[in-house]
Amino acid sequence: MLHQQGMLRDGALLNKTIIVTGGGTGLGKSMATYFLKLGANVVICSRKLEVLESTAEELQKLTGGNILPLACDVRKPEQIEQVISTTIEKFGQVDGLVNNSAGNFISPTERLSHKAVDVVVDIVLRGTYYFTLSLGKYWIENNIKGTVLNISTTYAWTGSGWVVPSAMAKAGVLAMTKSLAFEWADHGIRLNAIAPGPFPTKGAWDRLFPEELSKQFAFENRIPLHRVGDHQELTNLAAYLMSDYSAYMTGEVITLDGGEVLAAGQFNFLKDVTDDQWDAIEDQIKNANRNSKKSE
Amino acid sequence: MLHQQGMLRDGALLNKTIIVTGGGTGLGKSMATYFLKLGANVVICSRKLEVLESTAEELQKLTGGNILPLACDVRKPEQIEQVISTTIEKFGQVDGLVNNSAGNFISPTERLSHKAVDVVVDIVLRGTYYFTLSLGKYWIENNIKGTVLNISTTYAWTGSGWVVPSAMAKAGVLAMTKSLAFEWADHGIRLNAIAPGPFPTKGAWDRLFPEELSKQFAFENRIPLHRVGDHQELTNLAAYLMSDYSAYMTGEVITLDGGEVLAAGQFNFLKDVTDDQWDAIEDQIKNANRNSKKSE
Amino acid sequence: MLHQQGMLRDGALLNKTIIVTGGGTGLGKSMATYFLKLGANVVICSRKLEVLESTAEELQKLTGGNILPLACDVRKPEQIEQVISTTIEKFGQVDGLVNNSAGNFISPTERLSHKAVDVVVDIVLRGTYYFTLSLGKYWIENNIKGTVLNISTTYAWTGSGWVVPSAMAKAGVLAMTKSLAFEWADHGIRLNAIAPGPFPTKGAWDRLFPEELSKQFAFENRIPLHRVGDHQELTNLAAYLMSDYSAYMTGEVITLDGGEVLAAGQFNFLKDVTDDQWDAIEDQIKNANRNSKKSE
Amino acid sequence: MLHQQGMLRDGALLNKTIIVTGGGTGLGKSMATYFLKLGANVVICSRKLEVLESTAEELQKLTGGNILPLACDVRKPEQIEQVISTTIEKFGQVDGLVNNSAGNFISPTERLSHKAVDVVVDIVLRGTYYFTLSLGKYWIENNIKGTVLNISTTYAWTGSGWVVPSAMAKAGVLAMTKSLAFEWADHGIRLNAIAPGPFPTKGAWDRLFPEELSKQFAFENRIPLHRVGDHQELTNLAAYLMSDYSAYMTGEVITLDGGEVLAAGQFNFLKDVTDDQWDAIEDQIKNANRNSKKSE
Repeated sequence: MLHQQGMLRDGALLNKTIIVTGGGTGLGKSMATYFLKLGANVVICSRKLEVLESTAEELQKLTGGNILPLACDVRKPEQIEQVISTTIEKFGQVDGLVNNSAGNFISPTERLSHKAVDVVVDIVLRGTYYFTLSLGKYWIENNIKGTVLNISTTYAWTGSGWVVPSAMAKAGVLAMTKSLAFEWADHGIRLNAIAPGPFPTKGAWDRLFPEELSKQFAFENRIPLHRVGDHQELTNLAAYLMSDYSAYMTGEVITLDGGEVLAAGQFNFLKDVTDDQWDAIEDQIKNANRNSKKSE
Repeated sequence: MLHQQGMLRDGALLNKTIIVTGGGTGLGKSMATYFLKLGANVVICSRKLEVLESTAEELQKLTGGNILPLACDVRKPEQIEQVISTTIEKFGQVDGLVNNSAGNFISPTERLSHKAVDVVVDIVLRGTYYFTLSLGKYWIENNIKGTVLNISTTYAWTGSGWVVPSAMAKAGVLAMTKSLAFEWADHGIRLNAIAPGPFPTKGAWDRLFPEELSKQFAFENRIPLHRVGDHQELTNLAAYLMSDYSAYMTGEVITLDGGEVLAAGQFNFLKDVTDDQWDAIEDQIKNANRNSKKSE
Repeated sequence: MLHQQGMLRDGALLNKTIIVTGGGTGLGKSMATYFLKLGANVVICSRKLEVLESTAEELQKLTGGNILPLACDVRKPEQIEQVISTTIEKFGQVDGLVNNSAGNFISPTERLSHKAVDVVVDIVLRGTYYFTLSLGKYWIENNIKGTVLNISTTYAWTGSGWVVPSAMAKAGVLAMTKSLAFEWADHGIRLNAIAPGPFPTKGAWDRLFPEELSKQFAFENRIPLHRVGDHQELTNLAAYLMSDYSAYMTGEVITLDGGEVLAAGQFNFLKDVTDDQWDAIEDQIKNANRNSKKSE
Repeated sequence: MLHQQGMLRDGALLNKTIIVTGGGTGLGKSMATYFLKLGANVVICSRKLEVLESTAEELQKLTGGNILPLACDVRKPEQIEQVISTTIEKFGQVDGLVNNSAGNFISPTERLSHKAVDVVVDIVLRGTYYFTLSLGKYWIENNIKGTVLNISTTYAWTGSGWVVPSAMAKAGVLAMTKSLAFEWADHGIRLNAIAPGPFPTKGAWDRLFPEELSKQFAFENRIPLHRVGDHQELTNLAAYLMSDYSAYMTGEVITLDGGEVLAAGQFNFLKDVTDDQWDAIEDQIKNANRNSKKSE
């Protein structure tokens, strides 16, 4: 299937050095893989150096590309500065950043403590603006036209119950994307975002979403296109946004969710009406109109 | 209950003459009633003069206000011109317009003929811009700071299946609202919109929505606030938007839908999870985290 | 002028107790004033007890209403709990909350330190979710159908350069508004927001916006309706949203900005084209079309 | 420059037959060219058969691909049916549709006749839903998983003065995109849209936008990224959306405008503040805060 293959021409990211936060596992790892295949140097960072190192070794073998694993808690500006300076030492400069680190709780909000909310907001929002701010200062000072990709969600603008800490943080990240896209456009810096639907990764997914819920609310039924996403579909879009092919795009958030967010439509609950029911309804309406015309 | 009572201070619409299209029945009639109570002169128009005249008589008795019923097909510019000139003759000038006339089909789109789609688009979109254009020219020429209220829907921006002709038309109306709000602000003309959720009116509602569907998809269950709206709730908002109390608002669409549009939230399907399930989920997550930490 | 007068009928907020954060000055003080006039008990809180006490004394004299000033740093959960319990002691229960406390820096983002960004995010976002979470737990436990009003901004969804910390925080607040509106609707709790344009208050305004800038970018020219807002216009809307008149509205953000946000329109820069220029353009287009038709 | 080159791997559109309305000139022609290069069969249609035939000949030579020019007024359902059946005869089936035909007037709205508004609405909105409806019926009946791409604009959702007929029509098209994306997802049909900023084409552009205005409001100054778009940038995105690489995307509108739409940000007018002014402002604010603290 075409959508499970790489879309961009070879070398699309040649000579670019990209930092992917949370790049050791899940979608971050998938993006790192495809960026390497397209010729980029990639730095992956998270708090778990062991996981990063194992991923780096695996991807180096797989792609033959240049990958550097670096420990970093994105809530610590000094650790971010360290990642940036080590990257510059190793690869000469930094060209791109993917803010992919995240945390989430699925829970009724009133069951959360103030601290629990803080944890998610700090990783997702604070971590993202810390890293973007540090890198932005470096780019402006050194006149580098950097590119940022933020992993957002559709509930950043629709809101969503039961993931309120994440909704607030992701909304903040989206506002940063649009705000800095305008403000820093004069410096040639671009910022864009992706709002992915369900792109499950074993492990991450199970921890977030217990089996019981997974069965009760099967994605195959809820998603209009009746399937979850394939990682390559997301990495194709991510690579486009990190590459110069998207040089005229900034401040944009692209939804890739199999139509999930469209559920808001006021009459979309009618999807469960059967063809036979529609036939009956048509008849009823015709009769109602006929009677209403007679009585006028 | 307070929300079933009039909100605005007496005389809020004194000395204003307002045209309400589709004002003979349903929400249009309810708005006309409240505008009359607040001191406005009201013109109601639609294709059905008999219905209008009966409504006018009823409301005149009820409120003691000035109400004028005029036949008008909003798809005919010359009939619109006639309504405007008759209104000026009778009341001196026109100050406000409520574009409330509408038509709709609930149906799978592929079952509709090109003509059926045209019918809805012509009444809702063409009718609205015809009336607004005619009145806008009159206002600009005569230096009158008129006010327009458009009855929109949430699916004007979310989209919705099974009501596609109406979705396209209402989206067009909303774009007109925002566009002219900016363009005509220099002339002191304001345009705003309301996106109502379910405010059923006997008759209109049954024709649109057969009993079978009404039962299967009961609004009481689907609407977050678990009820349909009361007409007075909508007319309070409409009167605010037609009055000088909202003098600083233009180009805005206000949703009044009991939270219906919020259903888009990615995790809002979790509303069906019970308290006991949440307890079980909390335990599972704690265990998963504990095991995942051990294995790292 | 009508828009400078109170809109709601007397007693619209009778028997309601409302907490207004940042209620000692500016718009917070104006809202407190109008809520008192409509019969509410009002608690104002901020870090500056002296300012609060002087405001309380002034408003008590002016309105004869019940007002209670309480010191509170909204970034401290234990101080919030203290405000809530003192309010309950004094007035029996809490019915409403206006999250109005705010901070802002107008500055190129790259000139800000990580700490400076944190200060704004902590006051605006953290303070808002701390207070809402504490009150929500209390409401759910005690089965009280509370109402929250958040003071948002249009740049919560458009983004804006030069106020990036505030943009991120206000976006987070808006996401919270929509998310909890859905999640807590089952408990009868409503959350809405207002996005105000320029409603200057002496003092606050000058500190944020130096005179030099005020002159260079005069609001009178930039705002489509050519004026700033009057505090009463905003308090009319705020009182509506805190009252039961808006009982069917939740998760909504209402913009009241004189049309300011509409500036996004792609061709709205044409507002500076004069009538004579339009005449000339019409002629040119006619000629171009004529020539293009000839050459086909 | 990379962004002026084709992005997708060879054969990305192999075995697909795509109809491009308005495909004889401008962006339509550019899309047709790139689709041909990627292996698609392309049908271009518009009212001007001579122009189409000349374009077809040129592109056939340039790309060696299969291109078929067909006369069609998109406001005539029977002509659309004719295009579809001729395409099926020639290429076996239809897989994709790009609704690219458009018309526009730049003018104060009150200078337009009712008829003039109709002309734009009929080409843009009616033409789009006529073609989409005809093709959708064919796809559903024949169980073909077709793909639609609509050329939208950012003012479809922001609104814009001086192009009101187009704004209404494009908003309608966008609502159709989202509505049918949900409704027809069960049939495997996808619909997406692009909202392009300025991608000038000689001729079309001059007719729409007289030289005088072009100079007064130079795009280079107004667009945050300080340039207009290159046709290849748009065709890269269009090809992605027509290809199976985007198989998980539906109901989405992607903005590609150099950041133009971001201008809505409330404080984005500050882009004209100079570095020296920012220095002075910082000093002023520090002093104001110092004085305010003293006086508290």
